[in-house]
Amino acid sequence: MSDPLYSGPEPTKLTIHQTDSPKDLLPPDQLKFGRSFTDHILCATWDANKGWSAPSIEPYKALSLDPAAAVFHYAFCCFEGMKAYKDSKGNMRLFRPEKNIRRLNTSAVRIALPAFDEDKVLKLLAEFTKTESRWIPEGRGFALYLRPTMIGTEPDLSVSRPQSALLYIIGSPVGNYFGSSGMKAISLEACSSPVRAWPGGVGDKKVGGNYAPTIVAQESAGTRGFQQVLWLLGDPQVPEQQYMTEVGTMNLFVAWINPETQTKELVTAPLDGTILPGITRDSILDLAQERLVPQGWHVAERRVYMTELKKASQEGRLLEVFGAGTALIVNPIRSISWNGEVIDCGLKEGQEVGEITITMKTWIEDIQYGEVEHSWR
Amino acid sequence: MSDPLYSGPEPTKLTIHQTDSPKDLLPPDQLKFGRSFTDHILCATWDANKGWSAPSIEPYKALSLDPAAAVFHYAFCCFEGMKAYKDSKGNMRLFRPEKNIRRLNTSAVRIALPAFDEDKVLKLLAEFTKTESRWIPEGRGFALYLRPTMIGTEPDLSVSRPQSALLYIIGSPVGNYFGSSGMKAISLEACSSPVRAWPGGVGDKKVGGNYAPTIVAQESAGTRGFQQVLWLLGDPQVPEQQYMTEVGTMNLFVAWINPETQTKELVTAPLDGTILPGITRDSILDLAQERLVPQGWHVAERRVYMTELKKASQEGRLLEVFGAGTALIVNPIRSISWNGEVIDCGLKEGQEVGEITITMKTWIEDIQYGEVEHSWR
Repeated sequence: MSDPLYSGPEPTKLTIHQTDSPKDLLPPDQLKFGRSFTDHILCATWDANKGWSAPSIEPYKALSLDPAAAVFHYAFCCFEGMKAYKDSKGNMRLFRPEKNIRRLNTSAVRIALPAFDEDKVLKLLAEFTKTESRWIPEGRGFALYLRPTMIGTEPDLSVSRPQSALLYIIGSPVGNYFGSSGMKAISLEACSSPVRAWPGGVGDKKVGGNYAPTIVAQESAGTRGFQQVLWLLGDPQVPEQQYMTEVGTMNLFVAWINPETQTKELVTAPLDGTILPGITRDSILDLAQERLVPQGWHVAERRVYMTELKKASQEGRLLEVFGAGTALIVNPIRSISWNGEVIDCGLKEGQEVGEITITMKTWIEDIQYGEVEHSWR
Repeated sequence: MSDPLYSGPEPTKLTIHQTDSPKDLLPPDQLKFGRSFTDHILCATWDANKGWSAPSIEPYKALSLDPAAAVFHYAFCCFEGMKAYKDSKGNMRLFRPEKNIRRLNTSAVRIALPAFDEDKVLKLLAEFTKTESRWIPEGRGFALYLRPTMIGTEPDLSVSRPQSALLYIIGSPVGNYFGSSGMKAISLEACSSPVRAWPGGVGDKKVGGNYAPTIVAQESAGTRGFQQVLWLLGDPQVPEQQYMTEVGTMNLFVAWINPETQTKELVTAPLDGTILPGITRDSILDLAQERLVPQGWHVAERRVYMTELKKASQEGRLLEVFGAGTALIVNPIRSISWNGEVIDCGLKEGQEVGEITITMKTWIEDIQYGEVEHSWR
């Protein structure tokens, strides 16, 4: 981006104001996702006339915004979620951060927030992570969750491009989601209405507006004993037309035996604009190409219809189903309730995770925690 | 709602802290929509354990929120737009405010924000309007625009129901949008992708997430000389399937001659979940039933396909097309660009507004400004 308005924020102008009152670290077993935050916040403001301001790292603080600020009214907000890890030598590692920063830029531009220089924001992200390095917990499953966020701040109630914005980064130390008990398979409720995203919508962007409308359906599934919602697309009245998109806030993978070729297949929904292009998703696809295909697997990005999934389960061809995302890497799925039936997803009784699911988790964590050298770290 | 958590905010507990430094009123000709605000803000906070706090009217001030507040990340935000008018006797009038407050409640509940007692919020709205009455400009076309807003404030990055929220009301004096030159017909560009809303989405709620994703398409239409986007639904590849939903942030009305019955018809899109249930829309439908139907008109809420509109225009049966919303009441439409053609919407050269359009505006303004007594005022 050569336009000087979008050429920042400039890391060489970064000022760091360390807090005078650093917080105590929480014991690792008390870390809850996204509830406690580190000592600092990184901020850079943007103005339609002046472009990006000099960024700063400051003591964590409340944001002060006019009640007419665009973000409060028209959801001018987008974000990223990523993690910083400590390897066995105590070195700080990020996992494919350039992918997150690129996606943030894409999300911002889609909702008329300003673009930025990705290399510069990557440098700022590294500086912030360095400043907060004492907050990165040690051990597998532990990490510092980083939340780059951009919001429109202009106090103007006209529905138009915000003339000012704020990019900020906060961090939250996160623990081992499953605790010491290991992984736990979840049950899903398939949902064809409400609908999470739509062709021509913003389902492929990490914008705030995708999230608030999902809570009620999620809670409703919870009251019936389901841990997550499987979001479908296709006419709610026509089960044969319904296909899988995402699960909760994760991408979805299915491992099954292709009925025609009798080969093992790992399939996931294609990036057709209704699916978040997950970085864990992308990593799994790459690792599958690299390590499963030589073992005879086929890997495909294509629509999976619920009728296909049901048939595979009935015929004993459904091997494993799992969600994939930054928070858990993978989340094994035991069953899916759909159209008045329960589709068994291939786990044996008492089995909480399938072979491909746990293998993927191990492969990715080995890279994240630096056990294996890889270009992604 | 008998649950005490949702039984507030309590107007009998309202505290009013008047500003020490009231602002100067802007001259009426300098009023821009949503840019300048009155002296005060009304606030009431909600907490999942304590319910609604005692509300307060305070000097207009910035909101101070944790950077992890739910609204910044997951678009927990909804709002209303309504106007307070001054009649020729200097009395303050609101137009069907109970409808706005009901819709705000519906919007809030859809995105997991707390419900409230509508009668109580109506009373608070009246109190706020009274406090700010010097800000209501006089004269037709002038009003105090009121913006009740609710946001999720809990600092928690988990995608879940916010455990705290803020309801607030701000006001912005607004002028005569068209200035002294009278109304001006606009040209639309029909858009089948991106889409504004979809079945199973939140297009019928006034939630923030509906707005940010519309800006880029709106700007893009602007570069081609169109003032607004006409949002279509239906396969972008199949023109015959495309039908009209809304225009910009307004509902859409078409007045035409039915080819079968040869009667005059006023039609608008049905409330199928993809359309905002506009209060101006509702008022126009009611007035049309009351005053046009006796003149032989037919009034219908039904899908209007673009092919139908084009055919009506070609056959000289298209009388008028107009947008309807709080900001302008009605906005006459000259033409719609669709599928490589320009559909002429029935205005003669030099004519800026059709008969039904201006009649509707007059009927509604007569009620809003108290020229005619009506139960809606």
